[in-house]
Amino acid sequence: MIDKLIDGIRKKQAPIVVGLDPNLSFVPEFIKKKAFAESGETLQGAANAFREYNKGIIDSVCDLVPAVKPQIAMYEQLGIPGLEVFKWTVDYAHEKGLVVIGDIKRGDIGSTSEMYAVGHMGHTKIGSSSIAAFDEDIVTVNPYLGSDGVMPFVKICEAEKKGIFVLVKTSNPSSGEFQDRLIDGKPLYEHVADKVNEWGAGTIDEKTGYSEVGAVVGATYPEQGAVLRKLMPKSFILVPGYGAQGGKGSDIACFFNEDGLGAIVNSSRGIIAAYKQEKYADLGEEGYAEAARKAVLDMKEDLASAINNK
Amino acid sequence: MIDKLIDGIRKKQAPIVVGLDPNLSFVPEFIKKKAFAESGETLQGAANAFREYNKGIIDSVCDLVPAVKPQIAMYEQLGIPGLEVFKWTVDYAHEKGLVVIGDIKRGDIGSTSEMYAVGHMGHTKIGSSSIAAFDEDIVTVNPYLGSDGVMPFVKICEAEKKGIFVLVKTSNPSSGEFQDRLIDGKPLYEHVADKVNEWGAGTIDEKTGYSEVGAVVGATYPEQGAVLRKLMPKSFILVPGYGAQGGKGSDIACFFNEDGLGAIVNSSRGIIAAYKQEKYADLGEEGYAEAARKAVLDMKEDLASAINNK
Repeated sequence: MIDKLIDGIRKKQAPIVVGLDPNLSFVPEFIKKKAFAESGETLQGAANAFREYNKGIIDSVCDLVPAVKPQIAMYEQLGIPGLEVFKWTVDYAHEKGLVVIGDIKRGDIGSTSEMYAVGHMGHTKIGSSSIAAFDEDIVTVNPYLGSDGVMPFVKICEAEKKGIFVLVKTSNPSSGEFQDRLIDGKPLYEHVADKVNEWGAGTIDEKTGYSEVGAVVGATYPEQGAVLRKLMPKSFILVPGYGAQGGKGSDIACFFNEDGLGAIVNSSRGIIAAYKQEKYADLGEEGYAEAARKAVLDMKEDLASAINNK
Repeated sequence: MIDKLIDGIRKKQAPIVVGLDPNLSFVPEFIKKKAFAESGETLQGAANAFREYNKGIIDSVCDLVPAVKPQIAMYEQLGIPGLEVFKWTVDYAHEKGLVVIGDIKRGDIGSTSEMYAVGHMGHTKIGSSSIAAFDEDIVTVNPYLGSDGVMPFVKICEAEKKGIFVLVKTSNPSSGEFQDRLIDGKPLYEHVADKVNEWGAGTIDEKTGYSEVGAVVGATYPEQGAVLRKLMPKSFILVPGYGAQGGKGSDIACFFNEDGLGAIVNSSRGIIAAYKQEKYADLGEEGYAEAARKAVLDMKEDLASAINNK
C-alpha cells in the first residue's frame, strides 16, 4: 500500500491527508437542518449529516490529495448509524481513488489484534466466504502491548498489501508523560521506533524502498521528529497536529527525507472546518467544501515552501 | 459503577467476569448451520450466530456472575452486523442485571478520547437530544498517550457514574517489551500504576472506598500483580489471562486485597468454549451453555479456595 500512497503523493504533489473527523459543531447548519428534518435529532439524523458533509469534502478535495483519514471515534460516538457512515466513507473515498487511513489506534493481545487487523484491513473467513468488513488500506496501531500486539497487523500488511502507522510520539500535550521517559538513556518513543524498524523489516517495498510499517509522530514535536526521521529511514511518518493543534509548515520540513518523501501530514479541522476561519469566511457555510479545497491548496503551498527551504 | 460491581460480586460470591469473545470456531455447528441457512455465509449470518451463542451463554450464567466483558474486536471483525450484535449484547446483559465491561482498549488525544468516552459510556448530544450510543458501564483504556488521553474517560466516570480499567501490565507474552522497561529504577507499568492512583483520586466511592479507575493486570504475571495490588490499594484490578492463557487459581490470590475484594477475574474461552474441553465433553455441543455454567461454578470454587488459602 505504501507504493500506492507514494504514487498518489507524487502525482498530486501533495504529502497531505485530509482528516475526516466530523463533529456536529463543524457540520454547517443547512446540512444538519435537512438531516434532522428527515431523521430527527437522533443518532441516524446526525450520521446522515456526517455523510452529506463528508461527501462534500471528498468531492471537493479528491483530485488534490492522495489520502483521507477518517477518525473512527467520531463515528463511534454515533453508535451503529455512525459506523455505517464510517464504512460508507471508506467506500466512497475508494471510489474516488483515495487511499484510506483508518485512524483506529487499535492494539490488544495477539489473538485479539488479529481480529482487529482482519476486520479493518483483511478478510473475515465465514464458512467458505472471505469478506472485507471495513476494508481500510492503512490503520493506526497502539504499541503498548508490544510485538505480539502489533505483528498480527504486520501479517495482514504482508498478506494483503496493506500498511500501518504505529504510534511513536503522539501530538497531544501529555504525550511525554510516558513516551518521553528515559530507558537506558533514551526516551521510550525511540525504543518504539527501534521496534518499528524491526516490525517493518520484512515489508520493504522493492520499488520505493519504504516499509509498510510507518510511524505516527506529532507535528507539535519537531525536534523529536527530526531525530525519529533519522532513526526510521525506511518508514513513512504520519504527522498529525498541523494547523488546529499548532504545528506549522516550518515545523514540518524535518519529517521529510532527502528524497522529499517519507512523511504525510494530516490536517482535520483546519480543512474540513476551514469555512469557520476568517480567511475563508467569505465563502459562507454553504461554501464549506470550497473552503476545504482552498485550505488544502494553501496547505500544499505552505508545506512545499517549507520543504524547499529545508 | 464500582459500587454496583462490588455489590454483584458480594451477592453472587463470585469475583468473576465472563468474556463474551465469540469466534466462529467456538460457536457450535448447530447454531452456525441455522444462522447460515437464514442469512448465508455472510457478515450478517456470522453475526446472527454470535447473537444466538451469546444469548445462550448469558442466560446460562447471569445468576452466577456479576459482569460480562464483550471484547469488541470479535464483533468489529464482522463489520456493522457484528457491531449490532455487540450493542445487542450490551443491552441483553443489562436486561439480565449484569454489569457490562466493554473491552475496547481505546485511547487517543484528548478531544478524540472524549468522543470514545461519550460514545461508549456517555450520552452523545444531538441538537436537544442526548443519546447513549453503546451504553457500556465500564471500558478498558490504553494509557500510551498519557493523562490527556485518559482524563476524558475519567470525566465521564464522574458525570455518569461509570468506570474504567486502564491497561497497566497486560497478560500477553510480549507485554514486557515496553511495560517492564525500567524508568528511574522502576518498570513503566509501575509509573502507569502511579497515574492510575492520580487519575482515580477524585472518583473514590464513599461506600466501598474503591475508585472508579481500575487497572488491567494479567493473571500470567502474578509477581507483578502482587506488587501492583499494593501500589494501587483503591483500584479494582481486572485480571485477564486466567484459564486458556495459562493463569491458575493459585496465581490469582495475590490480586485481592485483605478485604477479599479488589479484583475481578476474566475468563473467556475457558467458559464460553468449555464444551470443547474434555472435562465437559459429555454435554456435547448442544450443551455448550450448560458447560459454560459448570465452568463458571468450577472457576468460582478454584478462586474461592485460592483466596481462602492466601
